[in-house]
Amino acid sequence: MLCVGLDPDQQKFPISLQGQANSIFTFCRYIVDATADLVCAFKPQIAYFAATRAEDQLEQLIQYIHTHYPRVPVILDAKRGDIGSTATQYAIEAFERYQADAVTVNPYMGFDSMEPYLKYVGKGVIVLCRTSNPGGSDIQFLKTTDSSGELMSVYERVAFNAATKWNTNGQMCLVVGATFPEEIAKVRQIVGDMPLLIPGIGAQGGDIEATVQAGRSKNLMINSSRAILYASNGTDFAEAARKEAIKTRDAINQAK
Amino acid sequence: MLCVGLDPDQQKFPISLQGQANSIFTFCRYIVDATADLVCAFKPQIAYFAATRAEDQLEQLIQYIHTHYPRVPVILDAKRGDIGSTATQYAIEAFERYQADAVTVNPYMGFDSMEPYLKYVGKGVIVLCRTSNPGGSDIQFLKTTDSSGELMSVYERVAFNAATKWNTNGQMCLVVGATFPEEIAKVRQIVGDMPLLIPGIGAQGGDIEATVQAGRSKNLMINSSRAILYASNGTDFAEAARKEAIKTRDAINQAK
Repeated sequence: MLCVGLDPDQQKFPISLQGQANSIFTFCRYIVDATADLVCAFKPQIAYFAATRAEDQLEQLIQYIHTHYPRVPVILDAKRGDIGSTATQYAIEAFERYQADAVTVNPYMGFDSMEPYLKYVGKGVIVLCRTSNPGGSDIQFLKTTDSSGELMSVYERVAFNAATKWNTNGQMCLVVGATFPEEIAKVRQIVGDMPLLIPGIGAQGGDIEATVQAGRSKNLMINSSRAILYASNGTDFAEAARKEAIKTRDAINQAK
Repeated sequence: MLCVGLDPDQQKFPISLQGQANSIFTFCRYIVDATADLVCAFKPQIAYFAATRAEDQLEQLIQYIHTHYPRVPVILDAKRGDIGSTATQYAIEAFERYQADAVTVNPYMGFDSMEPYLKYVGKGVIVLCRTSNPGGSDIQFLKTTDSSGELMSVYERVAFNAATKWNTNGQMCLVVGATFPEEIAKVRQIVGDMPLLIPGIGAQGGDIEATVQAGRSKNLMINSSRAILYASNGTDFAEAARKEAIKTRDAINQAK
């Protein structure tokens, strides 16, 4: 159930890699090679590549994973959200240009902003539901009413819509942060067996045992990025990443 | 008040430009040269560049606008939304790499997902509030209650938070679609003089007169993209774009 997030922050790279051409790809390749047998997915975060003009290295990285670890799917963490005509372009970016197996999307603009991704049969569309950051509550935790008068948080509506309306072809998953195990349980109750991507363990402090139990031990992808990537900033960084990944995987498996 | 959106869809380019190297930059440059004296801003949509591996042409385009039309600000339409550490990377992308003057962001993940952009003094942060697409209602139109029991739509809460909490340094604007003039009026009432970016006229069918009146004729950036860019697909496309831009600008000015 462990997903390793690839958020390559050059300032945190070991000195041996700093200043090298293609260092982002090289760093990520070491992490991928050190952890591929331990993970259910890799999740590169596109912002880190875009900030440093390294889209070519992101292409190279995803191709590397597909070639060397064909059983490990790649989730492009992009959190896109735009009107249909623009979402069509973002879907081309994620699935044709980068050849990702799944992409994260933002539900604020509603169903037609997610529909273009669903047209790619077999690709995953992972919708933000309850996010792990402090500000996640600002909008997602607002209490809403409908014509029946039922009270439900915005994030619960997203889960409800995903489960009952939007997931037209079994491609949808939801993001629910590990920092809120009670809310993982609520979402699991609403969406049945739908897969959940759970960020927020590791650097963000979420509890693995509470997370796994709230998610009812099934169809979970539990993401850790920084705690694994930067377990060491010495030349042993890949080995340290592997150790941390094993520790995290074992903690997940023990909690099942 | 006219903002021209630069959504370069190669399939709609005149035949004379198709297949040319750098055709996206070239097409946009013609549109910019033909309309720069008519607009308050240009708004390139990053998805069209990302889908075709043309980030370098987006850099080139924004630099071209800054060099030749220094009084015209550039809004990078990216609708980013992510946790603080990732938002910091997206802010670098928008303001350092692309040198945009403003960026659009998504409020679903709350204030800490918008804060990193606000650290760039003098840059605009344009928050999605009520979007112009059909699915915009799915989340934004949910009725919410707070501890005082007051009923407010999600988009009104976004406007309220922007006006009272998030706009810490006068850099914030809101996106409110022209397809809903009544809701522009509601947002204007909540946010006072805060600038509004209004997409949805032109191809999306919003009414200019109703928009300008609802926005109370001030601090508006009214965006048209496709209706101007693709006014003709012949060799006269730039001239046709100018004519359409003049028509739109005049309609806006008459409605004031």
